Amino acid sequence: MDTEEFRLYGKQMVDFMADYMHNIRNHRVLPQISPGYVRDLVPEQAPEEGEPWEEVFKDIQRVVLPGSASPASTDLEMVMLDWLGKMVQLPQEFLFSSNGPGGGVVQSSASESTLMALLSAREKAISYVQSIKKDLSQGIILEKMVYYSSIEAHCSVEKAGLLSGLTCRLLPTDAAFSLQGDILQAAIDEDRTQGKIPFFVVGTLGTTNSCAFDNIEKLGEVCKKENLWFHIDAAYAGAAFICPEFRYLLNGVEYADSFLLCPAKWLLTNHDCCAMWVKDRENILKPFSIMHAYLKEDLEVETLNYRHWGIPCGRKFRSLKMWFVFRLFGVRGLQTYIRKHVRLAHEFENLARNDNRFEVLFPVVLGVVCFRLKGSEVQNEEMLRVINKRGKIALKSSRMRSHNLYFIRFVVCGKDTESEDIVFSWREISLAANNVLNPKVVGDKSETF
Amino acid sequence: MDTEEFRLYGKQMVDFMADYMHNIRNHRVLPQISPGYVRDLVPEQAPEEGEPWEEVFKDIQRVVLPGSASPASTDLEMVMLDWLGKMVQLPQEFLFSSNGPGGGVVQSSASESTLMALLSAREKAISYVQSIKKDLSQGIILEKMVYYSSIEAHCSVEKAGLLSGLTCRLLPTDAAFSLQGDILQAAIDEDRTQGKIPFFVVGTLGTTNSCAFDNIEKLGEVCKKENLWFHIDAAYAGAAFICPEFRYLLNGVEYADSFLLCPAKWLLTNHDCCAMWVKDRENILKPFSIMHAYLKEDLEVETLNYRHWGIPCGRKFRSLKMWFVFRLFGVRGLQTYIRKHVRLAHEFENLARNDNRFEVLFPVVLGVVCFRLKGSEVQNEEMLRVINKRGKIALKSSRMRSHNLYFIRFVVCGKDTESEDIVFSWREISLAANNVLNPKVVGDKSETF
Repeated sequence: MDTEEFRLYGKQMVDFMADYMHNIRNHRVLPQISPGYVRDLVPEQAPEEGEPWEEVFKDIQRVVLPGSASPASTDLEMVMLDWLGKMVQLPQEFLFSSNGPGGGVVQSSASESTLMALLSAREKAISYVQSIKKDLSQGIILEKMVYYSSIEAHCSVEKAGLLSGLTCRLLPTDAAFSLQGDILQAAIDEDRTQGKIPFFVVGTLGTTNSCAFDNIEKLGEVCKKENLWFHIDAAYAGAAFICPEFRYLLNGVEYADSFLLCPAKWLLTNHDCCAMWVKDRENILKPFSIMHAYLKEDLEVETLNYRHWGIPCGRKFRSLKMWFVFRLFGVRGLQTYIRKHVRLAHEFENLARNDNRFEVLFPVVLGVVCFRLKGSEVQNEEMLRVINKRGKIALKSSRMRSHNLYFIRFVVCGKDTESEDIVFSWREISLAANNVLNPKVVGDKSETF
Repeated sequence: MDTEEFRLYGKQMVDFMADYMHNIRNHRVLPQISPGYVRDLVPEQAPEEGEPWEEVFKDIQRVVLPGSASPASTDLEMVMLDWLGKMVQLPQEFLFSSNGPGGGVVQSSASESTLMALLSAREKAISYVQSIKKDLSQGIILEKMVYYSSIEAHCSVEKAGLLSGLTCRLLPTDAAFSLQGDILQAAIDEDRTQGKIPFFVVGTLGTTNSCAFDNIEKLGEVCKKENLWFHIDAAYAGAAFICPEFRYLLNGVEYADSFLLCPAKWLLTNHDCCAMWVKDRENILKPFSIMHAYLKEDLEVETLNYRHWGIPCGRKFRSLKMWFVFRLFGVRGLQTYIRKHVRLAHEFENLARNDNRFEVLFPVVLGVVCFRLKGSEVQNEEMLRVINKRGKIALKSSRMRSHNLYFIRFVVCGKDTESEDIVFSWREISLAANNVLNPKVVGDKSETF
């Protein structure tokens, strides 16, 4: 959708809203459809090719309004989680269409999803431990419980520990910043020897710092053997798994109890939107469902109540934007978008590698390039300051958590970013480097701002 | 703003967005302003009278874009929480403008706010207990900890206990469904005798079932004396405190450590939006702040980082909609809106009281009327079924948690609801009652659908 189409369709939508509000007294306030009705009105999977907006717009009337706002919201969310699950080829057990105990939900954030997975795993573990050691009180069990992730996992993994009061043990990675199975196994063995109770592991696909990938096949094997809940956080990188050539990165997901990816991060869906799947939803529903009389719905017996899957009582109709995006772009359009970003990241990588003043630090797998001036931290900081002060491009610095090396992250994330933007960005960086490395000399390579 | 104005201004906004996206490469990606800049550009309090949209629209360019999206988002959120805090006359300590340790934040839901308050109180209590009883381990302390609310509190209060693993004790109310100080004191005394550790109390202003009000002055006195964190949930009713005639209901808030009201519930702000204030933000920030290198912002030292106040890492620009609403309506416009709803609720109450087939169960203080047919539960259920099946109005049933009486809740919540809608609603109910009570007889009083 280009600017002029956006202008046209946006105004059409304003008219639709105005008409709806103007005629609000003519609408039924309760729907006449049955829960699950959306499944009969929309395809079982996302379209391969993008559809024109006109078709999508028509379906607001056909599909959404008859069940407005619920069960339309719940129904469409279930279908969209299945669509997206199929797009990344999740195992059947995670999909509603398998008619098993699994399924997906939209949470507001990866942080909330990971917290819910952790708390569900806690409840499952407490029940299990109390079933075999009846003399242990809950407080004693909680003190002994420990969960694991790579030291490079997102801050939300550690924060979930602070919020829950549970002990998080951050494990070292290999040289590629990937958490390996033997490290996890050794930690579990050590903790069990000390009487601790391992119960939960977070594997990360695409770390925030360097887009590193934990070895989820090996981690999954360990979790299975040790009977631990395995949660996979693919908040950013998960979007790429819609491309067959990147799907291998998700091998091992069959071991997971819960899995998340955020369409808001890299799938053209506005913040907030985090898709989370579980293999057995009873693990969330059983410990955290509360029913007060005022919450009772006539339709509830037949449908799914997402309220119990997360923290808030009220929910937003977030699946609507997923539906719009998946249909407007189609799977092929979204693949093209992901592939373009990866290609542009490699273009940037090449520019950096071909300038011997710079080094690229880690393998570029998706859209993140970590690089630095082959100089001091002070020089890198100064270069970053010059670049960001000009405000033409925005870069952020970081450090790996396991060592102190300062570097700069370049991430491709604009919908309309093109090669010329990469060239432009590199010129900004290169000139800033001139400023910092050799501010006085004038010449070709030393051109400054 | 009527339908035609919405149409006009909505399209103007679409053009603004289209132009912005079209010219995106001409914009700076990082702002040139300093954190706190919004405070210098907007008034210290909400306008008394509503402003025309044109003025609001101009300020997007003047106030928001120069700091887009942060610090604009953080800055405006701080100012809006102060505006709203002043509108309901919160004590100074809750406002940023006092330059003390207090302040407000927008959370996604009352559930999240209450959970964050509970977890913060937990950390504070653990630190305190460990400082005086060094031999108690955290697990033992957690087992002994107990918090309190009325049995009529919202389900999120109880759910926070399930999520956190902390023990929630639901206390009985008086005949008006209000939790009193002596009941709380007795529970605390009893629990302390048994070696438990009381640490947190939730007072509710405007319960979901019947819009009852806990005695927060007495509860607050007990909390102060017993050194417990006092949290007040005024999710729905809080909006009414912008009217001086309802502000007495908030007396006692000076005892609170945290307080919430949801503008999304009754202040014309779209879901999701929950305003939460604390007297000392260090109680949240200290236990739950995590800093990874990739989160570092150049500007952060000078500004406030809302990330640490809640669960998610990323945040939405929710203060924008508060700003729009507060300015478009002005304090007076919002007061008029609240007063109209209360007046309409009383109109409904009078219609119900004047029909001797019905009874109104509880005092109508704000916009909620609980009523029932003076008949069996089966008859009431049948009447509700008839009404909701027609779909002209939507009603929900409930029961008080402390006894089993089935009743129906009528809540005034539409922006444009008028007297004629109340009359229309009552006719729907009255005819449905005819259907149920006397389905065969034809006549004036017995007219049926």
